[in-house]
Amino acid sequence: MKINHIAIAVHDVEESAKVYKEALGSDSILFETVPSEGVKIAIIPLENCTVELMQPTSKSSPIKKFLEKRGPGLHHIALETPDIDGEVERMKGCGVQFLGSVRPGSAGTRVTFIHPKSLHGVLAELCSTSS
Amino acid sequence: MKINHIAIAVHDVEESAKVYKEALGSDSILFETVPSEGVKIAIIPLENCTVELMQPTSKSSPIKKFLEKRGPGLHHIALETPDIDGEVERMKGCGVQFLGSVRPGSAGTRVTFIHPKSLHGVLAELCSTSS
Repeated sequence: MKINHIAIAVHDVEESAKVYKEALGSDSILFETVPSEGVKIAIIPLENCTVELMQPTSKSSPIKKFLEKRGPGLHHIALETPDIDGEVERMKGCGVQFLGSVRPGSAGTRVTFIHPKSLHGVLAELCSTSS
Repeated sequence: MKINHIAIAVHDVEESAKVYKEALGSDSILFETVPSEGVKIAIIPLENCTVELMQPTSKSSPIKKFLEKRGPGLHHIALETPDIDGEVERMKGCGVQFLGSVRPGSAGTRVTFIHPKSLHGVLAELCSTSS
């Protein structure tokens, strides 16, 4: 199990991407819009994982609600595993609760989310290793 | 630049460590008390970084205030660099603001913190690569 990315909620992904790119000394940023999730994302690569800035693109987006309640900041972490189905089974056996079943994510991955109450307040994505 | 650890504020580090150890399938946890920072920490190793659970041990701890305001959850991320002095200089040149100067951290590292207003709401530790 390793960290795949750290996701941060922001009001303006283009403006935040400039700030992060400069601060982190990164030389590349990838932008991606995910209409089904109601977000526009900036992906900033670090050596061992990525930082993802997320801006809501619809009023019903959970990121929109997060920003209204807490303001911009750390939103979730993503844990990567080569065997997502096996991990979900193992975790369920430990009493871990999930938000929805395993479903298609970006770049050919499969994803699900661990309920924050199972990780003492932390929302965690579980994603499969990209093939 | 890479992620060194993800820090999570919790009420009871021993109880949370059990939950995280089981959920993440980790077979080792290291506990550390840092009286100068007013925290007790559980360090859970992942493949490419660590998860650190932090419980306040004094009433004046910033973690105590964080928990009272927001409850348990993601507190900060730590970025590791082999040249912390050079990075601080470079970042200051980009207008990044710091919370205090570079000072001794745990395990022989040197650390400082980037002000959340310089990273759109995210508190980030900057730490030197352990020698």
